[in-house]
Amino acid sequence: MAATLTPATETGARIMAWADTLAVHTEQPGMLTRTYLTEAHHGAAAQLTEWMQAAGMTVRRDAAGNVIGRYEGTTPNVPALLTGSHFDTVRDGGRYDGNLGVILPVACVAQWNRQGKRFPFAIEVVGFAEEEGVRFKATLLGSRAIAGTFDTNVLDNVDDSGKTMREVMRAAGFDPAGLPAAAHAREQVLAFVEVHIEQGPVLLNEGLSLGVVTAISGATRFIVELEGLAGHAGTVPMDMRRDAAMAGAEIGLFIERRCSGLPGLVGTIGQFNVPNGAANVVPGRAVFSIDIRAGEDAVRQAAVNDVLAEIERVCARRNVRVQIRKTHEAVSVPCAPWLQQQWADAIARQGLPVRHLPSGAGHDAMAIAAIADVAMLFVRCGNGGISHHPTEIMTAEDAASAAAVFSDFVEHFDKHSARQQ
Amino acid sequence: MAATLTPATETGARIMAWADTLAVHTEQPGMLTRTYLTEAHHGAAAQLTEWMQAAGMTVRRDAAGNVIGRYEGTTPNVPALLTGSHFDTVRDGGRYDGNLGVILPVACVAQWNRQGKRFPFAIEVVGFAEEEGVRFKATLLGSRAIAGTFDTNVLDNVDDSGKTMREVMRAAGFDPAGLPAAAHAREQVLAFVEVHIEQGPVLLNEGLSLGVVTAISGATRFIVELEGLAGHAGTVPMDMRRDAAMAGAEIGLFIERRCSGLPGLVGTIGQFNVPNGAANVVPGRAVFSIDIRAGEDAVRQAAVNDVLAEIERVCARRNVRVQIRKTHEAVSVPCAPWLQQQWADAIARQGLPVRHLPSGAGHDAMAIAAIADVAMLFVRCGNGGISHHPTEIMTAEDAASAAAVFSDFVEHFDKHSARQQ
Repeated sequence: MAATLTPATETGARIMAWADTLAVHTEQPGMLTRTYLTEAHHGAAAQLTEWMQAAGMTVRRDAAGNVIGRYEGTTPNVPALLTGSHFDTVRDGGRYDGNLGVILPVACVAQWNRQGKRFPFAIEVVGFAEEEGVRFKATLLGSRAIAGTFDTNVLDNVDDSGKTMREVMRAAGFDPAGLPAAAHAREQVLAFVEVHIEQGPVLLNEGLSLGVVTAISGATRFIVELEGLAGHAGTVPMDMRRDAAMAGAEIGLFIERRCSGLPGLVGTIGQFNVPNGAANVVPGRAVFSIDIRAGEDAVRQAAVNDVLAEIERVCARRNVRVQIRKTHEAVSVPCAPWLQQQWADAIARQGLPVRHLPSGAGHDAMAIAAIADVAMLFVRCGNGGISHHPTEIMTAEDAASAAAVFSDFVEHFDKHSARQQ
Repeated sequence: MAATLTPATETGARIMAWADTLAVHTEQPGMLTRTYLTEAHHGAAAQLTEWMQAAGMTVRRDAAGNVIGRYEGTTPNVPALLTGSHFDTVRDGGRYDGNLGVILPVACVAQWNRQGKRFPFAIEVVGFAEEEGVRFKATLLGSRAIAGTFDTNVLDNVDDSGKTMREVMRAAGFDPAGLPAAAHAREQVLAFVEVHIEQGPVLLNEGLSLGVVTAISGATRFIVELEGLAGHAGTVPMDMRRDAAMAGAEIGLFIERRCSGLPGLVGTIGQFNVPNGAANVVPGRAVFSIDIRAGEDAVRQAAVNDVLAEIERVCARRNVRVQIRKTHEAVSVPCAPWLQQQWADAIARQGLPVRHLPSGAGHDAMAIAAIADVAMLFVRCGNGGISHHPTEIMTAEDAASAAAVFSDFVEHFDKHSARQQ
C-alpha cells in the first residue's frame, strides 16, 4: 500500500491549523499554559474529542482524564496500535510539544476514514492528560495510568492553591478509584509509537525533517551544596579563601569537558546560586544542580562516577564541605529495534534520509514501555531547537512529511516482524 | 613620655565590657543591627555621650548625628588630633566593627583625664553616625559630613518603609540645612587616625595583634550579565550550546587566577545567579558581580583590564552576549607615611613586632582624607578573621595592646614630623 492520501501539503496545513486552534485553550491570556484538569485543559480535551469523533473514532475518557480515540480495525475488538502524546503544557510553553503527537495521528485517521480504509488492527490515539508535572509536581500521570504504573501516593500532592490531586480529579468528574481500570492489557497493545518535536537542534542543524529515536536517555540528577567560608571580599587574601562559588565553577567546567565529545552524553548545571550573595562578600555557600544524561546507561554511569570523584578532589583541595543529594535517576528506555526499522523503512519510502538519534528529554513512551514495545518519530524543531517556550516552532512542510511517514508506517505496520528480530 | 597608665589589662577589660554594653542597643533582639537614626542608634549615641562626658570631654552632636567628644589641650581652641570610627552596624553584625574605634580612644582619654594629663593639641573622638550604608543605601554619611563632602542628593534616598533620609533626620532633631556647618576646617585638624579590627585573617594567621595600614585599597566593581541561549538539558548536544553559566564559571576562575600571587590584589565574584534556572534547562542567562581591589591603583587597573579582555574572549568563543556595568570605582587612599611611622614607632616601643598591610575594606578614614592626613591601626580579628557577622571576635589582650599603642602614639604625636618627610 502506498501513501495515496490527499496532497500532503493539505494535511500539513490542517495539522498546523489544529495546533493553533488547540493553543487557544490556555489558563493565561497571551501565553500558552495548560495544566492538569484546569478549565483550559477541559476545553482542549473537548476539542480533541470533537476532532476524533469527526475522524470516525469512538472516544472515551479514562479515570486519569486521558482522551482516547479508537479507530476500529476490519474486525471489532482486535488489539490496537497505540499512538499519541500529551496535551498538557508547561507554563508559557509551545503549541507543538506533546500536542503534535495527538493531532497528527487524528488527521491521518480522518483521511483513512474518508477513504473508508481500515486495518487488521485498531488504532488508538491517546491524548495523555498529563506529562509535564507542572500542577502537582508529578510527571507522566496520563501514560502511567494507561501503563498501570500510576503511583497513588501522588493523589495527595497539592497544587499552588492547596487542593489535592484527588480533590481536583473528583471535582472534574474523574474517580481516582477507577485508575487501576485505566491500565491497558498488554495483549491488547501491539506497540506504542509517539510522534514528537525533537525539542533540540540536531535535525535542524543537519537539515533533516525527521529522525528515528533510538532510546530515551537515562538521567541522573543531583543537588550539590558547597560550604566554604564567607569572608570580606577586600580583606581575605586569595590564598586564604574557601570560596564555595569558585569550587562550583571548577566543578561545572569539569562536567562540561567530561560530557563533551561522546555522542548522546550531556551534562548540565541548570541552577547555580550563591545564597544571599553580596558583591563584597566571598561566597561561603553555593548551591547548584547537576543533570547528566545519555542514551546508554553505562556511558552515563561512567560520567557520573567521574564527576563525583572530581567533586571530592576539588572540595578537598579548596577545603570546602560538600553535600550531594541524588534527586532523580532513570535508566534509559530503548526503542524497540523492530519498530525503529519500520520507522526507517517508512521514512526511506517517502524519499527522505534516515537519521537515528537518542531523545535527551523524557516522553510518555517511557511509561508505556512497561506494557508494550515503544518507538518514536522526531520532527524537526525550528528556531534553534527551542521548546518549552512560546517561540517553539515547526514548519507545515515538516508536519506534512511527518504525517506522510506516520501514514506509511501504519499502512505497513507488521507486528510479526517483532518476533523475527 | 612612657605609657604609664593603669595596668593595660584593666583598660582592655573595660573596652571589652563597653563593647558588650553598647551591643545592647540593637533594632533586632538576638542580634546586633543598628542602622542610622533608629531608636537603637539614638540609644548608642546617648551611651557614647555619657562615657565621653565621664572621661572629661565636652560632647556635641552635629547635623549628621555624629557624636563628637572633645578633650581640650593645654590651651583652649587649639587644633585637634581627630580619631574615631562608626557606631552604626550592618544587619546581624559584630560588636567591634567600628565601635572599637570609638570606645578605645574614650577609654584612653578617661585615663589621661584621671591623671590630669593634657597635650599641646586637643583630642576629638568622633562616633561617626553612619558608615555602612544599610538603611539608605549610601555609605560614609558621618565622615563625609565632617569632611565637607556630604552629597545632599542622598537626602532623598528612602529606607525600606519609604521615609526619606531628610524626613528621618528632621524627625530625630537633625537639620539637613546644618550639614555644611558640620564640615571641619582643615587647619583645625592635625591628622585623623582610626583604630579598627582588621576584618580579615592576615594578622591572625601571622600571630600578630596589631598592624599599620599602608592604604585603603581602591576598588572596581562590575555587574556582568551574560546572555547565551536557553535549551533543554537533555536535547541540546554539548557542542551546540551557548551556556551562559559556564561562560561565567570560566570568567570566575580566570579572575581567581589573575588576582592570586600579587600581595594586596584580590578579585571576587560575590554574587552569581542563573535567573529562573531549572535543573533541566541549559542556562540562557547568568548574572554576577565582580569586585577587584588593590592597595596600588596601577595593580588594580592592570587586573581589571585583563579581566575585561578575558570576558570578551570567553564570550566570543562561546557565542554569548555580554553587558558589563561598572557600579563602583574608588581609587586607593594612602595612609600618610609620617603617621604610619609614628604608629610603627609606638608599636615598637610597646615591644611588639611591626607589620604593615593594606586595608581591603573601606573605612571612615577614606572620607576624612579629603581634609587631613589619615592613618589606621588594625587590631587582630579572631575566628578566621570574620566580620560583619555575629561571630566576629577579638581578645581583651589585643584590646589592651591596642589601647597601649594608641596612648603611646598620642603621647608621642608630633605634627612637625609631617613636614620633614
